[in-house]
Amino acid sequence: MNHAVVLLSGGLDSTTLLHHVRQREGAGVYALTFCYGQRHLREIAAARWQAERAGVLEHHIADLALFPALIPGASALTDARLAMPALADLDSASRRQPPTYVPHRNLILLALAAAFAEARGVSTLYYGAQQQDAYGYWDCTPEFQKRLNAVLALNRGTPVTVQAPFAGMRKTELVRLGLELGVDYSHTWTCYRGAERPCGDCPACAERATAFREAGVADPLSS
Amino acid sequence: MNHAVVLLSGGLDSTTLLHHVRQREGAGVYALTFCYGQRHLREIAAARWQAERAGVLEHHIADLALFPALIPGASALTDARLAMPALADLDSASRRQPPTYVPHRNLILLALAAAFAEARGVSTLYYGAQQQDAYGYWDCTPEFQKRLNAVLALNRGTPVTVQAPFAGMRKTELVRLGLELGVDYSHTWTCYRGAERPCGDCPACAERATAFREAGVADPLSS
Repeated sequence: MNHAVVLLSGGLDSTTLLHHVRQREGAGVYALTFCYGQRHLREIAAARWQAERAGVLEHHIADLALFPALIPGASALTDARLAMPALADLDSASRRQPPTYVPHRNLILLALAAAFAEARGVSTLYYGAQQQDAYGYWDCTPEFQKRLNAVLALNRGTPVTVQAPFAGMRKTELVRLGLELGVDYSHTWTCYRGAERPCGDCPACAERATAFREAGVADPLSS
Repeated sequence: MNHAVVLLSGGLDSTTLLHHVRQREGAGVYALTFCYGQRHLREIAAARWQAERAGVLEHHIADLALFPALIPGASALTDARLAMPALADLDSASRRQPPTYVPHRNLILLALAAAFAEARGVSTLYYGAQQQDAYGYWDCTPEFQKRLNAVLALNRGTPVTVQAPFAGMRKTELVRLGLELGVDYSHTWTCYRGAERPCGDCPACAERATAFREAGVADPLSS
């Protein structure tokens, strides 16, 4: 049996990825979730639910507690003193690296996940980057993935390869795929604000709403 | 004034680097030290002493407490259940990736350090890789540095560049340079075992002893 590590946030993209890898690729899956000081900690509970639903070999939740103090004032996702923008507030310049960008987050989490994989003798590591994220996050682009894999290939023991099968897909396509796979999106969390209910206007909420609307189905979190 | 981040472990190489950057390059230096579950935690106290001596702008000590549980059984440096090898025990095959290798450690620490730098608007990040480390650690090689810089260059805000000015130097040359710079090596820590006194036979002790002997000076930790 193939084995794989899936970086699982509990959001829409990585949840779809988890079930995709589990069902389509038949892999024995290790799911790995990080608390990194994100304001939307609600996603962790969603990740836990989804990992259990998918029947993973192991769901490891790791607390990167040091992170917010390392990057004070650098991201609206990890510093509650910063205003969370609405998608409508972002002009074309700030969309290239918006206030919701977290410095080097994906490199850090993928490096930690690669170590987690290597310690288990697993050489395939999935993460849920999709096409739309590339607008604002250099660490969600295919070029990032390619260059990171060039680094990881130097490993002399267990070289780990990062795979991002959704990198060429829009969020709408992910919703359609997830519904085919039977994903229960009521147990996912997307909103950056992380209050009791999704805010509806942060960039993450706005993109999720568009995806469900285009897919022609109701978002169970909005009903 | 130039600013730079120095990844400082408290060992011989990074301590020499800290003073080199501070004195030769006149930079305003941020020093960054990680606890990552290393058995030789004594190096942290040395790092603190050296950062104060160098007169850094900030010395940030971050606790990557999650790390040992992420990589159980994977490294003799972070798992006390594993035997620490003597240098003499390592054959040529195991020298390519010895038991003291910590999965993806340098990628993880440099990624975190790059985030630390980016949050402070600093684009130069130094780390103390030297020529001899390349024998056993893929993440100390010039090729690793080059490929990692290709990843970091994608950053659309503050691209951080990793510099390893000692990558072509042997440890003996570092000792000579450090003595020229006035580095007090009694406040460094090298031994992987981390007991009260250096053990003298782990790979790190053996290499340090060779470096001082070749430099023709006594190691203040051995006297």
